[in-house]
Amino acid sequence: MKKSRLALAHALCSTVLGSTVLALGCLALLSFAGTASAQTPSSGTLEVPAKTLSAPSDVSPQLQKIIGAPLRSNWDIHPKTGEEWKPVADAGAAALIKSVPGMLERLKVKVEKTTIDGVRAFIVTPETIAPKNRNRELIHMHGGCYVLNPGEAGLPEAIFMAGFGHIKVISVEYRMPPEAYFPAALDDGITVYKAMLKTTPAENMAFFGTSAGGALVLEMGLKAKELGLPMPGAIAAGTPMSDVTKVGDTFQTNAMVDNVLVSPDGFCDAGAIVYANGHDMKDPLLSPVYGDMHGFPPTILTSGTRDLLLSNTVRVHRKLRQAGVEAALQVYEGMAHAHYIRDDTAPESREVFEEIAGFFDRHLDK
Amino acid sequence: MKKSRLALAHALCSTVLGSTVLALGCLALLSFAGTASAQTPSSGTLEVPAKTLSAPSDVSPQLQKIIGAPLRSNWDIHPKTGEEWKPVADAGAAALIKSVPGMLERLKVKVEKTTIDGVRAFIVTPETIAPKNRNRELIHMHGGCYVLNPGEAGLPEAIFMAGFGHIKVISVEYRMPPEAYFPAALDDGITVYKAMLKTTPAENMAFFGTSAGGALVLEMGLKAKELGLPMPGAIAAGTPMSDVTKVGDTFQTNAMVDNVLVSPDGFCDAGAIVYANGHDMKDPLLSPVYGDMHGFPPTILTSGTRDLLLSNTVRVHRKLRQAGVEAALQVYEGMAHAHYIRDDTAPESREVFEEIAGFFDRHLDK
Repeated sequence: MKKSRLALAHALCSTVLGSTVLALGCLALLSFAGTASAQTPSSGTLEVPAKTLSAPSDVSPQLQKIIGAPLRSNWDIHPKTGEEWKPVADAGAAALIKSVPGMLERLKVKVEKTTIDGVRAFIVTPETIAPKNRNRELIHMHGGCYVLNPGEAGLPEAIFMAGFGHIKVISVEYRMPPEAYFPAALDDGITVYKAMLKTTPAENMAFFGTSAGGALVLEMGLKAKELGLPMPGAIAAGTPMSDVTKVGDTFQTNAMVDNVLVSPDGFCDAGAIVYANGHDMKDPLLSPVYGDMHGFPPTILTSGTRDLLLSNTVRVHRKLRQAGVEAALQVYEGMAHAHYIRDDTAPESREVFEEIAGFFDRHLDK
Repeated sequence: MKKSRLALAHALCSTVLGSTVLALGCLALLSFAGTASAQTPSSGTLEVPAKTLSAPSDVSPQLQKIIGAPLRSNWDIHPKTGEEWKPVADAGAAALIKSVPGMLERLKVKVEKTTIDGVRAFIVTPETIAPKNRNRELIHMHGGCYVLNPGEAGLPEAIFMAGFGHIKVISVEYRMPPEAYFPAALDDGITVYKAMLKTTPAENMAFFGTSAGGALVLEMGLKAKELGLPMPGAIAAGTPMSDVTKVGDTFQTNAMVDNVLVSPDGFCDAGAIVYANGHDMKDPLLSPVYGDMHGFPPTILTSGTRDLLLSNTVRVHRKLRQAGVEAALQVYEGMAHAHYIRDDTAPESREVFEEIAGFFDRHLDK
């Protein structure tokens, strides 16, 4: 484990290795003197051996199954155009949509299609709206790397929020490639917000979303500031794609550990590149961690210990706190990217959304 | 990547692989149908290949150096008795204590030794106590796996807190093996708390500590409840050894990634075993994550993305929230176990302690 620079110390210590106690003392001296020793060949790098991970034992059976699932198949596809993405998105949506009716039934939520100032959206309403939420509305931006989850496939998170939070949700079916490119998704979110501001005070509204949706709600905060619109009463960003330039330490540490995104060079990166359409990836409207978050409303962030975007979640948390914003962070045991919107019967999913609902309740006007 | 169960789908798809678009559509179908495919030989496990980690680029140079340091030498020693630990602890302390005078000078803090109802302690006082903190006192429990950092070697965190927080700290030099074993450290903390309650209201006090100290402050909360003592106004637990039974997913995912603790089977586990001295490791007074946290005061938790105890930090956060306790979580980019008490010139260290100081300020009486 130790290399040549400690050879002298080793040699010196070898002369006194007579008793356990002396040997341990010597080891300790080596230990604390040992910052010059080289564990890895080049400075600042660390060689991590291959490992076999078990699904954690300290989560619900439902979550254990999700965490223990194999890597997402075809995580390393790299469609290069909106046209190449479309069949991928359509096939994924066709599979995912099958789970929606069960969710609606279990969570007692109904969905209707609408159009708001030309933008496609869904009105997602729980059977019972909590009395305190009667004058509140949430705007949902779905995830999917800016290219996936068209139509009803974008609804699960909106259904979870409406059902667990007993609150009305408008889920924006924003335009995606090949229909439109950056900043179309953001523009559609802002169009819906502006329309809703005509009837609902900003302080009674919140934005929420996960992954690309988590980035979009932060981008909408930045854009609202730029446009001089009032801020919503709160924001909830789940495992946001807050930095599409691949900066973030868990892009390394959780690579091949997160069974959803798997790698910083996987399908999701390919989706963001197509959406950006040549635009600077470091623009805060694509990588909101680089935005100025002064004046943001209270914001709650959600991630998991196996999340490839854990760094990009906690970096936004720090950025908000540094800007003096009230910001809460929740990180869930074992969860990889967006695992909390998979199974509405997992108690951890309920916990995530009840935490967000409680946060909204503390910060939204009635 | 895919095994026999998907062979049919593969074969079907192979027949239509004429154009890129069709191929991608087919890949997507495989992808979303593919949860039955086996990435790894046994169900629920994930094979993670070896990797080389670079120190993250998005932290301060000081923190980058700490994260980029090689694995702690001799992380895999396993002293079996208090007597075997003593020379290890003494050698480590001798090295660490050299950094203390510089910290005291830079942070404008002074230290005096004392004894409180028979327990050794240090009074750690900043040159300037903030006016709002004049009637407030903090109890510090140092880290070191219940066996390391005797005497002044336990002081850095107390100095950081006093200096960055402008508040008076009593740092408990609790008994450690071979002088005494479980529950001696906890008892010493409680003795000091009881003594301080004679002159200072509980609501004006907080407990804080990191690693074993993070566990001890949670254990003190549980013990205070058991004894019918009033709760302190707040608690700050940094990367707590909240579960010494090795449950926690980041024991796997951050093994060999955290350059301080390195492994769940390393020196720190050996230290906890010696302190426990045969006592049940799952007792909440050794593994506080299993304790009943109803009635706890507001608690702030600190960890980092490379922390071996990230899971054991976030699990305590969830446990507190489930018990209805106001609890804040801060997770820092790239940090391994307790990296924030290494270098007082790192801006991230200041940030950690200013966050804790702010949390205390919001929750302690004046």
